[in-house]
Amino acid sequence: VKTDDRPIGLFDSGIGGLTVLRSLLAALPNESFVYLGDTARLPYGSKSSATIERYLLQNIAFLNKLNVKAIVVACNSASTVLVDGHLSGSFQVPVYNVIEPGAKAALAASVSKRIGVLGTKATVSANSYATCLLREKIPNTVVFQQACPLLVPLVEEGWVDDPLTNLVIHRYLSPLLSEKIDTLILGCTHYPALRGGIGRVAGSGITLIDSAEAIASAIIADIASSTLGASSGRSPLRPALRLMTTDVSSSFTEISARLMHPHVIPALEAVDIA
Amino acid sequence: VKTDDRPIGLFDSGIGGLTVLRSLLAALPNESFVYLGDTARLPYGSKSSATIERYLLQNIAFLNKLNVKAIVVACNSASTVLVDGHLSGSFQVPVYNVIEPGAKAALAASVSKRIGVLGTKATVSANSYATCLLREKIPNTVVFQQACPLLVPLVEEGWVDDPLTNLVIHRYLSPLLSEKIDTLILGCTHYPALRGGIGRVAGSGITLIDSAEAIASAIIADIASSTLGASSGRSPLRPALRLMTTDVSSSFTEISARLMHPHVIPALEAVDIA
Repeated sequence: VKTDDRPIGLFDSGIGGLTVLRSLLAALPNESFVYLGDTARLPYGSKSSATIERYLLQNIAFLNKLNVKAIVVACNSASTVLVDGHLSGSFQVPVYNVIEPGAKAALAASVSKRIGVLGTKATVSANSYATCLLREKIPNTVVFQQACPLLVPLVEEGWVDDPLTNLVIHRYLSPLLSEKIDTLILGCTHYPALRGGIGRVAGSGITLIDSAEAIASAIIADIASSTLGASSGRSPLRPALRLMTTDVSSSFTEISARLMHPHVIPALEAVDIA
Repeated sequence: VKTDDRPIGLFDSGIGGLTVLRSLLAALPNESFVYLGDTARLPYGSKSSATIERYLLQNIAFLNKLNVKAIVVACNSASTVLVDGHLSGSFQVPVYNVIEPGAKAALAASVSKRIGVLGTKATVSANSYATCLLREKIPNTVVFQQACPLLVPLVEEGWVDDPLTNLVIHRYLSPLLSEKIDTLILGCTHYPALRGGIGRVAGSGITLIDSAEAIASAIIADIASSTLGASSGRSPLRPALRLMTTDVSSSFTEISARLMHPHVIPALEAVDIA
C-alpha cells in the first residue's frame, strides 16, 4: 500500500482551531501534524476579505515550506476566501476549508431546511455558508445568518458559563429563533466553547452543527479512502505534533493545554510569517 | 520666528486614536497631520509586548518616511513599550506616548491619590500607568488596575448606551469601587465612547481621566512653547490631513466619519506596513 508520511498542516488565526486538531489526533494516530496559530494578527473575523486572503496565502506558503501533504484551514473567516473557488488550482497540496463540510452536515441534519448560521463579521458578510447551503439546490432551503462579534472575546475572557454571556447569546439568537430554524451552524471554531449556553437558548428543537467536527470527519474519511494516509508504526524520530504561533504569550500556552486535553502538547514555537 | 511645516504623525492599532487627532485638529489649525491605523493587525491589546514593540517600530519607521516632525502614539497598548525608556534615543523625531500625560492628569485630579486604571490586557500587564503614577513619589498614591478586554468589542459592536454593556462595566468596575478610588483613568482610546455608562456606574465622586484628551493637551502645550509649530496661513497645496489604514473596510470609513465629526475627512488610503 502506498503511504505518505509527511505531516498534515493546519492553521487558524488563533488557537480555536486546536479543537479540529484534537479530533484529528484522536482519530488518526499514525499521522503527524503541524499547527500554525497566527496569533500576532488575530482576529481575522473583523478584517476585509483582501487582507484575509493575503494572510491565508502567506500561511499556506509557510506550511508548504514545512513539506506538509495537506492543509486544513481550521478557521471559518479564513475559509471564506476559498469557497468561491477563485483560488482553486493555486495550491501544491489539497487545501480543506471548514465551511463546506459544515454546510453539508447542516443540510443532512435539517428537516425543515430552515438553517441558521452564527459567524464572525467576515464569515457572514462573505456569505459563504449561504453559498454552500444554497448551491445544493435542495427545495425550501432558507438561510438566516447572524454576525456575533462579541462571542470570541467572551470565550477569551473565560465568561463561558455566565449569565451575562447568555444575555448576549439570547440577543444574537432571537432573530434566528423567530425565523423557526431547526438547525444552527456554529460557524467559528470558538463557538463550541459556548455550546451549552447556545443550546439552552436555542432549545431542544434545534440541532447544533459544529464546523470543527464536520471538517475533522471529512478529512478522516478522505485519509481512509486515499493514499494520503501515513504508514502505521510511527518512527520515534518523527515528531508527531508541532505547535507554532506568530505571537507567544503565557495565556496561549494555558488555553492550548486546556483545549487539547487529554493530549499532551509540545512547547509552542514562535515563528515569523510576514 | 522659526517654524516647521512638516506634518505631525499619529498612529493607533485602529481608529480609536482619531479622537486624539480630532482634539489636535481643533486646537492647531495651522498643522498638517498624517494618521495611520494599523487595522490589518488590530487589536494590539491582546498581544505580547515583543509583538507590540515590533509593530510600534514598523509604524514609526513608516511615518518617518513620510517626513513627519513628531509622532503621537495614540494607542495605550502601543505606548506601554515606550514608558520604561529602553527605546529612548532611538527615534529621529519626538515620540509622544499617551500614558505619561494620562498619569499626570490623574495625579493632578486626585485628592485621595487612590487611582483606578481601566485598560487592555497588554496595558494592564505592562504596568505602565502604575509605573508613571508611582514614580512621582506622591505620598499615599495607590493604583488599582483592571483589564477590560470586552469593552473594545462592545464599542465596535455599537452597543454603547446599552444595559448589557452597563452590566459588563459594572463587573469590571466593582473591584475598583470597593477600593474607594476617587479618580479613574480611561486607559484606552476606545473607552471615552463608554464615558456615559462608566460615569454612571462610577458615580459622581470619581473623576474620569481621558488619556486622549491628556495627550492632546500635552502636545498643544509643546507646540506653543517650541519651534515645532507650523507657519500660519496654510498653503493650499499642503494636504492638511491624510488618513491611512493597513486594512480597508466600509465600516472603518463610517466609524471614522462619526469619530471625526464635525471635521470632514479625506478618503482612507490603504497602505502596507509589513
